[in-house]
Amino acid sequence: MLRANSIVVDAIPDFLSSDAAQRIKDLRKSKIDVQQLQTDLRSGDRAALSRCITLIESSLPEHKLEAAQLLNTLEPKQNTLRLGITGVPGVGKSTFIEAFGLYAISKGYKVAVLAVDPSSQLTRGSILGDKTRMEELVKSESAFIRPSASGTTLGGVAASTREIIALCEAAGYNFIIIETVGVGQSETTVADLTDFFLLLHLAGAGDELQGIKRGIMEMADLIVINKADGANVKPAKRAQAQLKSALSLFPPKTNFYESKVLTASALEHSGISDVFDEITTYFEQAKENGHFEGHRKKQVLKAFQSMIEQALLFDFTNNPNVKAKWETVVVDLETGKITPRTAVQQLLELYRNA
Amino acid sequence: MLRANSIVVDAIPDFLSSDAAQRIKDLRKSKIDVQQLQTDLRSGDRAALSRCITLIESSLPEHKLEAAQLLNTLEPKQNTLRLGITGVPGVGKSTFIEAFGLYAISKGYKVAVLAVDPSSQLTRGSILGDKTRMEELVKSESAFIRPSASGTTLGGVAASTREIIALCEAAGYNFIIIETVGVGQSETTVADLTDFFLLLHLAGAGDELQGIKRGIMEMADLIVINKADGANVKPAKRAQAQLKSALSLFPPKTNFYESKVLTASALEHSGISDVFDEITTYFEQAKENGHFEGHRKKQVLKAFQSMIEQALLFDFTNNPNVKAKWETVVVDLETGKITPRTAVQQLLELYRNA
Repeated sequence: MLRANSIVVDAIPDFLSSDAAQRIKDLRKSKIDVQQLQTDLRSGDRAALSRCITLIESSLPEHKLEAAQLLNTLEPKQNTLRLGITGVPGVGKSTFIEAFGLYAISKGYKVAVLAVDPSSQLTRGSILGDKTRMEELVKSESAFIRPSASGTTLGGVAASTREIIALCEAAGYNFIIIETVGVGQSETTVADLTDFFLLLHLAGAGDELQGIKRGIMEMADLIVINKADGANVKPAKRAQAQLKSALSLFPPKTNFYESKVLTASALEHSGISDVFDEITTYFEQAKENGHFEGHRKKQVLKAFQSMIEQALLFDFTNNPNVKAKWETVVVDLETGKITPRTAVQQLLELYRNA
Repeated sequence: MLRANSIVVDAIPDFLSSDAAQRIKDLRKSKIDVQQLQTDLRSGDRAALSRCITLIESSLPEHKLEAAQLLNTLEPKQNTLRLGITGVPGVGKSTFIEAFGLYAISKGYKVAVLAVDPSSQLTRGSILGDKTRMEELVKSESAFIRPSASGTTLGGVAASTREIIALCEAAGYNFIIIETVGVGQSETTVADLTDFFLLLHLAGAGDELQGIKRGIMEMADLIVINKADGANVKPAKRAQAQLKSALSLFPPKTNFYESKVLTASALEHSGISDVFDEITTYFEQAKENGHFEGHRKKQVLKAFQSMIEQALLFDFTNNPNVKAKWETVVVDLETGKITPRTAVQQLLELYRNA
C-alpha cells in the first residue's frame, strides 16, 4: 500500500507562509544597506553577487523585506542567454561545461554556471559541489560558479534558482548555464528556467540511456554526442546518424527550431565552437522572430502560477483539521472505500470550516 | 503581450464549490431512488447506466448527494481493462475501434467506448458524436458507446470520465476504450485514466505526425500502423521497422513493458487479433507482477490531488479581492515591474485577509 504521505506537497519558501506578512511588519530596522548592495551588484562585483544570493536564500525574517526590495529593482534582461544542460553521470558534463564556458568567455561573454540538483540536499551537492572539477573556468574573472540553490524540494530550488539567475544577470553575466542530471523531474524544472535545452549523450546509444528519463530526448533542442575522440569518433558519428533519423520521426516542436545532433570532444576541445555557433544562431533567430521574449513571459507566468499552487496546497495540507483527517481519507481512497470526489469534498469542508 | 487571463484555471465541478455543502444540507427529500438505480445498474441494464451518467453529470444541487451516494457504493473493479487510444484525425480511429471492439466482444468481453475530447464543447462532439460511424458496434448488446463527458475544461472532463468508467464497470463492462485526438493535453489526461496507451499511426512517418504532439510517441505502450492494406502494406512494414528502431533509442519506460510496433488494417480486419493478443498479454503480466494494481492506486491519488488543486485555485482566483488586483499583478509581472515572488506575496495577502 502506498503511504499516506505519498502525495508530495512541495514545501513553500518561507516568505509565502501565512505569518510572513506579520513578521515583516514586526521587522526591526534593517541592518543591510540594500541600496549599496544593488550598486555593488550592478558594478559586477562577485563578492556582492554572492552576498545577494545569500540574502535571498536566507530564512531569517528580517531578510525577507530586503530580498524582495532587492529583487524588485532588477530590470529583466533580454540580452542574456540561458542554457540548460543535462546528461547522465559519466557523460562528461563538467568537462564539457568548462570547455564550453571558456569558449564563450573567449567570445566576450560573462558566464555563470548554476546547478539544479534535487539530490544535493542529501549528498551536499553531487554536481558542481566540487569546483575543482572546473579548475580553469573557476580561475577566469568572467566566470561565476555556484552549486545548487538551497531548498528542501525541487519547487523551492526552482524558485530560488530563478532569482539567482536574475541576480547573476544584474551583475553582468550574460551567458547563464544551468546544469542538471538526467534522472528525474529536474529537467522540466531546468527547461522552465532556460531558453535552450542541451542533452549531452555518449556514442553507442542504448545502454547509456538507461539513466535518462523518457521524454527528455524529445525535450532537447540540441543533442551533443560527447567524447567523440580517438577510437570513439566512428561510433559517435554512427550514433549521430541514428539519433538524427530518430529525431526526424518525432513530431515537430512547438518552437520554430528543428532539433539538431552534433558531436564534440570536450577533452580535445573539438566541436565546441560548432555547438556554440548553433546555440548563438538559435538565439539570434529566436530574438528576431519574437519566440525568445514570448517564451520568457510564459515562463514567468508559469512560475507565478506554480508558486501560488504551492502556497495554497501548503496552507491546505498544514491545516490542523485537514491534517487530522488526511491519513484516513487517503487509506479510504486507496482501498476504494470512497471516490476521489468524496475524499475532496470531505477535506474541503474541514478546511473551509476551520 | 499575453492576456491577463493567460493563466488558465480549470473550472471546478460544481460540487466542490464553497456553497455546495450548504446546498446539500438544504436539500429537499430526494426524488431519485438510488438503491433501485444501483440494482438496475448492477444488472447491466444499459438504460440504468445512461441514467446514472446523467445523474453524475447533472449540475442540479439536489442531484449532488445522490451522485455521491451512488459512486461511493461502487466497489473498485480490478478485473477490467482500460485502454487509451489516440491518433490524429484521418488515421482511422473509429474504424479501428469498431473492428477492435467487435473482436473483443467475440472473445467474451463487454466493451464500453468513451471519449475525452477537449473540442467537443465547441463542436458538439467531433469524435464519437456520430455513432453511425460505428454502426456494427453500436448494434451489439455487449457494447456501450458514449460521447465525451460534459465539462467546460479538460480537468472537469477528466473527473467526470473517471466516474463514468466506474459506472460502466459496475454495469459489467470489462473492456473500457477511451478515445482522444492526438493534438493536445488530452493524451496525458487519457493516460491518467487508463492502464495501457495505444497510438494509431499511418505508414510514411513524417507528414502524418504534424498533428501529433511531441512526447505522445514516448508515452505510447503500443504503436499500431493502421491502414496496412493494399498498396500500403509495404510502406507500413517499412514504417514499422523505422519506428521500432526509433523506439529502441528511447529510454526505457517506467513500467516493465517494452513498447511494441504492430501493423493492422481495420478495414480488412487484419492484424486486429495480434493487437488484441498483445494488449491482453500485457494485462496478464501487469496483474501478475503487481504493476496493474499499483498503477491504478497512483492514478486515484493523482486524481485526488489534482481535484484539490483545482478547487483551491478556483477559490483563490474567484476571491473578490484577488480578482480585483489580478490583472494589475499579471501586467506588472509581464512587464518585469515585479517578480513572481512579489506577485504571489501581494495576492496571497489579499486572499488571506479577505
